[in-house]
Amino acid sequence: MTRLWNAPADFADEMVEGFARANGRWVRKVYGGVSRSTVAEEPEVAVVIGGGSGHYPAFAGLVGPGLAHGAAMGNLFASPSAHQVESVARASHRGRGVLLSYGNYAGDVLHFTEAQEALRADGIDCRTVAVTDDIFSAGPNEPERRRGIAGDLTVFKIAGAAASLGWDLDGVERVARRANDRTRSMGVAFSGCTMPGAAEPLFSVPEGRMAIGLGIHGEPGLAETEIPTADGLAELFAEHLLADAEVPVAETAGARVVPILNGLGSVKSEELFVVFRRVAELAEERGITLVDPQVGEFCTSFDMAGASLTFLWLDDELEELWAAPADTPAFRTGSFDRGGLLAAEDGGAEAAERAIPAASEESREDARRIAGLLDATRAAIDAHADELGRLDAIAGDGDHGIGMQRGASAAAAEAAGLAARGAGAGTLLAGAGGAWADRAGGTSGALWGVILRTLGSAAGDDDVLTGERVAAGLTEAAEAVMAYGKARVGDKTLVDALVPFAESLAAGVADGQSLSTAWETAAKTATKAAQDTADLLPGMGRARSHGDKSLGVPDPGAVSLALIATTVGGLLARD
Amino acid sequence: MTRLWNAPADFADEMVEGFARANGRWVRKVYGGVSRSTVAEEPEVAVVIGGGSGHYPAFAGLVGPGLAHGAAMGNLFASPSAHQVESVARASHRGRGVLLSYGNYAGDVLHFTEAQEALRADGIDCRTVAVTDDIFSAGPNEPERRRGIAGDLTVFKIAGAAASLGWDLDGVERVARRANDRTRSMGVAFSGCTMPGAAEPLFSVPEGRMAIGLGIHGEPGLAETEIPTADGLAELFAEHLLADAEVPVAETAGARVVPILNGLGSVKSEELFVVFRRVAELAEERGITLVDPQVGEFCTSFDMAGASLTFLWLDDELEELWAAPADTPAFRTGSFDRGGLLAAEDGGAEAAERAIPAASEESREDARRIAGLLDATRAAIDAHADELGRLDAIAGDGDHGIGMQRGASAAAAEAAGLAARGAGAGTLLAGAGGAWADRAGGTSGALWGVILRTLGSAAGDDDVLTGERVAAGLTEAAEAVMAYGKARVGDKTLVDALVPFAESLAAGVADGQSLSTAWETAAKTATKAAQDTADLLPGMGRARSHGDKSLGVPDPGAVSLALIATTVGGLLARD
Repeated sequence: MTRLWNAPADFADEMVEGFARANGRWVRKVYGGVSRSTVAEEPEVAVVIGGGSGHYPAFAGLVGPGLAHGAAMGNLFASPSAHQVESVARASHRGRGVLLSYGNYAGDVLHFTEAQEALRADGIDCRTVAVTDDIFSAGPNEPERRRGIAGDLTVFKIAGAAASLGWDLDGVERVARRANDRTRSMGVAFSGCTMPGAAEPLFSVPEGRMAIGLGIHGEPGLAETEIPTADGLAELFAEHLLADAEVPVAETAGARVVPILNGLGSVKSEELFVVFRRVAELAEERGITLVDPQVGEFCTSFDMAGASLTFLWLDDELEELWAAPADTPAFRTGSFDRGGLLAAEDGGAEAAERAIPAASEESREDARRIAGLLDATRAAIDAHADELGRLDAIAGDGDHGIGMQRGASAAAAEAAGLAARGAGAGTLLAGAGGAWADRAGGTSGALWGVILRTLGSAAGDDDVLTGERVAAGLTEAAEAVMAYGKARVGDKTLVDALVPFAESLAAGVADGQSLSTAWETAAKTATKAAQDTADLLPGMGRARSHGDKSLGVPDPGAVSLALIATTVGGLLARD
Repeated sequence: MTRLWNAPADFADEMVEGFARANGRWVRKVYGGVSRSTVAEEPEVAVVIGGGSGHYPAFAGLVGPGLAHGAAMGNLFASPSAHQVESVARASHRGRGVLLSYGNYAGDVLHFTEAQEALRADGIDCRTVAVTDDIFSAGPNEPERRRGIAGDLTVFKIAGAAASLGWDLDGVERVARRANDRTRSMGVAFSGCTMPGAAEPLFSVPEGRMAIGLGIHGEPGLAETEIPTADGLAELFAEHLLADAEVPVAETAGARVVPILNGLGSVKSEELFVVFRRVAELAEERGITLVDPQVGEFCTSFDMAGASLTFLWLDDELEELWAAPADTPAFRTGSFDRGGLLAAEDGGAEAAERAIPAASEESREDARRIAGLLDATRAAIDAHADELGRLDAIAGDGDHGIGMQRGASAAAAEAAGLAARGAGAGTLLAGAGGAWADRAGGTSGALWGVILRTLGSAAGDDDVLTGERVAAGLTEAAEAVMAYGKARVGDKTLVDALVPFAESLAAGVADGQSLSTAWETAAKTATKAAQDTADLLPGMGRARSHGDKSLGVPDPGAVSLALIATTVGGLLARD
């Protein structure tokens, strides 16, 4: 959805005005678009780019030193008129000629060509380079029919760099064409955008499906599939871009490539980084060196959900021009003295493997049993992670299931390793607690870390872990959790289940019950208490999220505690 | 929707890995997050920031010279653990102490405080500054309870700049606190994000509604309203930020403020620029100077739809620090020699008002009638713009209605002006055609420009506009349009209606009919022809968009032509 506008018909004009007001350091508004607000010391060939609006940072965001000199900005998804292109070119011209460059769409070709004729008729030397990077818009035998998408950036950047180095129009045109010849992109889409004021999206892709090669205005794609994994998408991109490479596939090893992983609007940086991880691996496997990777938004379509990958196959000349400094509202590179580069080694404070303190045979035996209990806990959490997530999504941020999974899994793995290395119960519990907290993150991860570490202190590495010791450890753990999390019973947190659990266990043990019997009763108490976190009166619980009006949903932290208590109780009873 | 992941539980780790692989020029991966991959020549106080993942560019995108030295990165929306914060701080420390800074959330406070204690215990001087910019999360009398949102950036940037200038830890802490004291933000939301792997959004806002003050993880807001206009949102932001300003409202005139207009994920740059336009106006009205405006994504929540506005109220010290150079994956500023700054005047090629060529009284009379016809055309297009847009949205990009509105309205206004200044029919039609093409943009705008200008050439400024002359002009116009647009009858464009219209009109006039009679018949022919553009067999029409399988929808360009022909015909018949 596009949601913010005044009158839809004024959107494009008001957008240009707001853009120019925000970016006066780089651009000034001229008739038909924007032109630089700065002049280089020596006159440069003017690189004038442009196209429809709605693709920010294409095109106006790319105007500034080292890149474009002006951008003609049409209405939403509509080419600027010839008169507008001509106006921006005249405003940007410094006597050394004009290179017009734009994505290869029929309307843009018409208008930029007409503008070129008008400029030439007036004695201004003018050339045009239409960008044709989208490999899915036409076959390799008719590259001139291909559309321009995010690969626009490479052509504009190379041309702008050449102009900023003082090259003449012949040189700027030549290298812009070379950049276009060596740039290939491929895009996919998950959903279309809505235009300002429109009630329906411009085009759509069925829920859960992905259109391959769909154009940024909804032009037809090649095929539709299920949405792949992030790795699967990286592989799909790489496969097609390598098959269509300007460089023969057999020669790609050793090649140097600038990758541009572009989000169309609603696919976000985090997702793109996950995809990029696999792109980098694939390049490495093929012996391709990725140079100055770009991951972000470079050519969008409002809030369209989609992504594209562009490869610019470098040669020495292109690499030098790509690396030249540029400074525009949306693209800045290469002019900062960064100081020395550190070696890429992990310089973090992750402790080297610690020595295992000596432990009694009894405590090591307990440790092995606890490792088994932690593994069962991991399995129980895995089995219920989705449920816990859903519970948390109703009143919280939905990540409780994932956090518990990460924590329990890390704790179980750490415990297994420590047990194998002969750790006692205290060391094993402390190590498992640390692993849980680190890996789960968040408040709940920290609290489970506190619980396990406190139990570990109570257990030590020497003595047998009696019922009394376990009960005392749990009582201490409940107190530590309350102190750490600043929560009390009734606050609708894990404390609501932990405190009654510890109290019940201590009472049972004090009564002379076996640990397993006392635990079983305590686990039931914890389960009941967890359920009761849902029964607070409206307003008494923490309203943790929009729309939470005491929904009768139990606190997921308390539920997790009850689940673990019950799981462990079941195993203790079997022993 | 978040769509791209592998295993949801691995998302955060894979994201950090991909981020580090893409941004090795700035960062290296360390245990718990990232630290700079570069070292400054002189040791600096280490500014270590962090928080949950899912808010890119916060936090890892802000690590680099002039800004942060490291970022601790927790799981999705979950605080990093104390151990992770400590690890990143140790990796970033250069012997001059550590400033920890993060948004004020309970989990982060716990873990950063614990990390601070661990560092201090080890003899490393460490301070923490929690950012509290969100004015809707607590009242002005308890600022320490406020959450941190996009105002994080100002505190991090100011602290990083002070560190890069060699300030000591006392100084860096002092100025970071000062930046926090003078930073205020306010956010709104239209919809929540979905976590990777989740089926449902984390939280939601009813369709068409806006939640005021909703937190970036769905924390409760203040109120819910209808979505305002872009201007209305700017006014809402400004009203609240001025009411809560650190500087008393009476003293805001003359103040210098850095505005940060932040998109949460799915609200795009174009919308933000439209909102910013009004923010800039409001600041100007109040005598506030906006310094170095930032419009884009600075603290996101995956693809959450929402926006926030932050004001940093500058003093001389803060302004100097804000302006200092910074170079990070997502924030780069201030180190480029830009050359001279041009005056802000419009340097475009918009022609000065042209002289009106002499015209006969008959032609001026015709011109006045044509101006009336163009105004009626404008009214007819206005009345049907939504319909035309819907028609276009089915098989095209949905902007036809808006484009026609802009064009017709500009043509009518230009014609009225020219008629008032005594232009003849030829001059008036040429001027109206130019205005239409410029203002409408796109191919359809260009074609209407061609039609009107060709009619203008045929009309001239001397002779009475007879039926023969009109018919001949339209025949020429049809030919010019076909040549210009490279379209023929049957291509499902405006040509499909224009050619039969011109032929019918020419035949009627040749038959001795009056212009109005011949026009009426021709308009009916055009209407029928426009309807017929829907009747092509599957595959014969241009498939112009994903999902267009010859839908039986007439071409909107042809429909527009028929609409205009019918409107003009009605008026001619009345005369």
